Amino acid sequence: MSIKLADYLFTRLRQLGIRSIFGVPGDYNLHLLDFVQPSGLAWVGTCNELNAAYAADGYARINGLSALITTFGVGELSAINGIAGAYAEKAPIIHINFRRFADMASHVTVAQVDLKDPRLVPDRIDWVLREALIHSRPVYLEVPDDMVDVLVDTSNLTSMISIPPCPVTGHEQVVLDRILERIYAAKRPLILVDGESRCMDILGDIDKLVKTTNWPTWTTIFGKSLVNEQLPNVYGVYAGSLGDPQWKDCFDSADLILNIGPHYSDTNSQNFTTIPNLAVTITFSNTYIQIDNDIYRDTYPSNILSEILKTLNTSRIPRVTGPAKSVKEVNQLNPSDSITQKDFYRIVNSLIREGDLVLTETGTAAHGGRNLILPQNTRLLGPATWLSIGYMLPATLGATLAQSERTNNPKSRAILFIGDGSLQMTVQEISTMIRENLNVIIIVINNKGYTIERAIHGRKQSYNDIAAWRHAQALGFFGADDKHVTENFFSARTWGELDAALRDRRIQDGTGVRMVEVFMGREDVQGALLRLMEKQIADEY
Amino acid sequence: MSIKLADYLFTRLRQLGIRSIFGVPGDYNLHLLDFVQPSGLAWVGTCNELNAAYAADGYARINGLSALITTFGVGELSAINGIAGAYAEKAPIIHINFRRFADMASHVTVAQVDLKDPRLVPDRIDWVLREALIHSRPVYLEVPDDMVDVLVDTSNLTSMISIPPCPVTGHEQVVLDRILERIYAAKRPLILVDGESRCMDILGDIDKLVKTTNWPTWTTIFGKSLVNEQLPNVYGVYAGSLGDPQWKDCFDSADLILNIGPHYSDTNSQNFTTIPNLAVTITFSNTYIQIDNDIYRDTYPSNILSEILKTLNTSRIPRVTGPAKSVKEVNQLNPSDSITQKDFYRIVNSLIREGDLVLTETGTAAHGGRNLILPQNTRLLGPATWLSIGYMLPATLGATLAQSERTNNPKSRAILFIGDGSLQMTVQEISTMIRENLNVIIIVINNKGYTIERAIHGRKQSYNDIAAWRHAQALGFFGADDKHVTENFFSARTWGELDAALRDRRIQDGTGVRMVEVFMGREDVQGALLRLMEKQIADEY
Repeated sequence: MSIKLADYLFTRLRQLGIRSIFGVPGDYNLHLLDFVQPSGLAWVGTCNELNAAYAADGYARINGLSALITTFGVGELSAINGIAGAYAEKAPIIHINFRRFADMASHVTVAQVDLKDPRLVPDRIDWVLREALIHSRPVYLEVPDDMVDVLVDTSNLTSMISIPPCPVTGHEQVVLDRILERIYAAKRPLILVDGESRCMDILGDIDKLVKTTNWPTWTTIFGKSLVNEQLPNVYGVYAGSLGDPQWKDCFDSADLILNIGPHYSDTNSQNFTTIPNLAVTITFSNTYIQIDNDIYRDTYPSNILSEILKTLNTSRIPRVTGPAKSVKEVNQLNPSDSITQKDFYRIVNSLIREGDLVLTETGTAAHGGRNLILPQNTRLLGPATWLSIGYMLPATLGATLAQSERTNNPKSRAILFIGDGSLQMTVQEISTMIRENLNVIIIVINNKGYTIERAIHGRKQSYNDIAAWRHAQALGFFGADDKHVTENFFSARTWGELDAALRDRRIQDGTGVRMVEVFMGREDVQGALLRLMEKQIADEY
Repeated sequence: MSIKLADYLFTRLRQLGIRSIFGVPGDYNLHLLDFVQPSGLAWVGTCNELNAAYAADGYARINGLSALITTFGVGELSAINGIAGAYAEKAPIIHINFRRFADMASHVTVAQVDLKDPRLVPDRIDWVLREALIHSRPVYLEVPDDMVDVLVDTSNLTSMISIPPCPVTGHEQVVLDRILERIYAAKRPLILVDGESRCMDILGDIDKLVKTTNWPTWTTIFGKSLVNEQLPNVYGVYAGSLGDPQWKDCFDSADLILNIGPHYSDTNSQNFTTIPNLAVTITFSNTYIQIDNDIYRDTYPSNILSEILKTLNTSRIPRVTGPAKSVKEVNQLNPSDSITQKDFYRIVNSLIREGDLVLTETGTAAHGGRNLILPQNTRLLGPATWLSIGYMLPATLGATLAQSERTNNPKSRAILFIGDGSLQMTVQEISTMIRENLNVIIIVINNKGYTIERAIHGRKQSYNDIAAWRHAQALGFFGADDKHVTENFFSARTWGELDAALRDRRIQDGTGVRMVEVFMGREDVQGALLRLMEKQIADEY
């Protein structure tokens, strides 16, 4: 039996759970695009290719896999920063192109194949898709325009593509015994959940582990929202010496740290200060388990974690009390006072409901978002490593689409926190959100420029300024109808105005794209950023 | 004597005629940015890095050189498609970065240097700048954040950087004699001016040659506006078998073609159909002169052309009459009729004045723009090779800024023709035009999507649709004041409305960014595109 190349490819993508493909049409991909909708896939054209890559990244983080079609040369190069970010933060995107810059792509994808020989096409497609799944990273797939309807063999299609199961090697018992022994003997244990857990097929087991042990549990920046933050023993994002001193004491005095899915980038490890002390740590990484200095490369977290949960003698698990959850001192806010970073995230936290997606863009939004306390089953996407400003708005498009496809819930919605500088990078994708009827609340923090850069350097410098936009006109310009625009744009300079906006039924129960513009001070920052800003001010005198 | 590295670099850029630098601030370039304004340079922050690269490209095409500063990783990769386009179409951009992806950059820049050793800094900067000038292509310059204020030697600064003069080799006479002999003997000669002439420092000599010989002269797509189109012997863009049959006859029967600055990309050579017959051609390329099959690599057009003009015996130049300039049949247009591609460019031609910049974006706008007849001293930028949609709007920003710096004329203005699909790619740079007080008339061709793609394939396919925007709100959203917006947005569906807009004093004599939205049919195309569209329609039956 035979099938056209494009049909083979799109059948595979559907089998792997992809429902929508992102991209921009171009001279040498038009024939391929003819096959998208007949395959049962939706085509989501974005305004440009970088935005398409960002959207595909967001989609992959929620859906597990995504696809992107660009045109050769100009299209693939415009997208390459998005692909690189997906590589850095582990989002598997199938980037389909008509080869030109595969050499460049090889720096930021885990596999590249061309589909020039019909005899090799099925195996090559299958191989590259499996690479994307295994590594949870982008791959580059070349489809020449004149190969689109060439016939290829169908026989592979009857077996599904999947990540090969982790082999059982017989060494598991040694590892398991060592881990159990450490668990039973621990006096001051804790759990740290990091962001690569997302790609390791162990989130269910992590949830059980956190509940079964009841041990104090933290996440990293990248791990946020991967455990249920409503559990009494889950504390939040560990920030080392920059965070709660009591939390740091727990880490410093711990005799066992279960460190799951580590991702040691500078941002995610708070400048390498939160990497647990190896001497007391058991590390569950994607491809190895480490106990003290012993690295076991032939045992796998997905096997071992489930074995632990099966064999754990719950009566022998040490009962540990974590630090008291500090009820944060709540300032009484005067409704006529200006909105400040310090209290903003606490206030806006009330907006978030179970099942929401929350997205926090690089900048003050991401810093503030780390302190949100999320309802269960609420995913948050924030920057961990790549920190490409402009990413989060198109990523919201992709993630929200994936979420609504998966949940099949027309009420499914996303809340995006984004600064005014980031917004300018990729703003046009608001129009795609509107066209796709997505439910997105965009909270624009208007602080007149790149405030996070002001904190780092150039507090008063004009290069950190941006052009002033009229955000009230965004929804209308990008195609929402007049009635929707009038009813769904909110502006808040004071706590009272913010409260009114957040309580408004269009925000609480509305649909479509809504926008809340929140004004904050140009130099208003918190936490680590505040220390940087203060250092600058001190240096000026 | 010593000077800080940043001061050395920016002094060099100023010496080479750069007045503004484009880019986006980022963590590892902020210290460098502190030196921009004190050096007497303007910082032009754009909304994102791809747009900054496009703007720098436009600036370089008018100014001869430009500079771009991005942040490492995310910034440089976002910009890389713009750099690649500048490489393809020969615009020298100094791309200043904190190295991460220099390997990728090596595919699309002619030289890459790092500035890590203070002893080597002055020579390395000078070398890389000279490379950019010689090749008229981008270079990649790494400035580590902690090297910005390291002291380096100043002594180089007293000698200016310039393109080394072409050596006089003694072989010139042979070449000169052969060329003069061919000129005097010619019976059916013509001149073809191509786009690389721009970078060869010979535009003045070309102008003299065209006037002195009075021979029929054409340009390529890329060469358009490099000769004075008001001269009676200058015909327009030669399009081979796709264009005027009389013109093709001239080329086919020519016994001498002076082919200057050739650039043989598929688009620019109309799918390789306009490349002159070598047997009758003398080619003046950047690095060689070719006569019949003999290539002279040690003689240079800039030397030879001026020698020809000096020694030419004007009484011996054959007098040749070109084809009659066809007075195009002018349809009487009914003011209430819809606007069509066929007559649009003829009508809008009246808007263009001497000294204007005209920019035609990839798509129907670029196709139509080829038929504009330009006043003298009017530069047109259109796509020739890279064809990255979205390029032209930020390029307009850069080119207009360069033009107003060079002419010091506050009335200096640009007219951008752009389709609605292209506009969506990079629209946010309208805000930078507004902030920089540039005089730009943006003519948006609203034909509901990627009409040029519809012509190629997918005439009715939804992947060639785009989201509907409200262009009337663009200027307001991007920060123009209400009064300006009300007075400077025009919309035209009919010839009558178009006429009214074009005659309006705000369009004729106004300032700032103005927009004319012109509605045309989704499938309305002309020329070669029409043939493609007709083929599709035929194939459907």
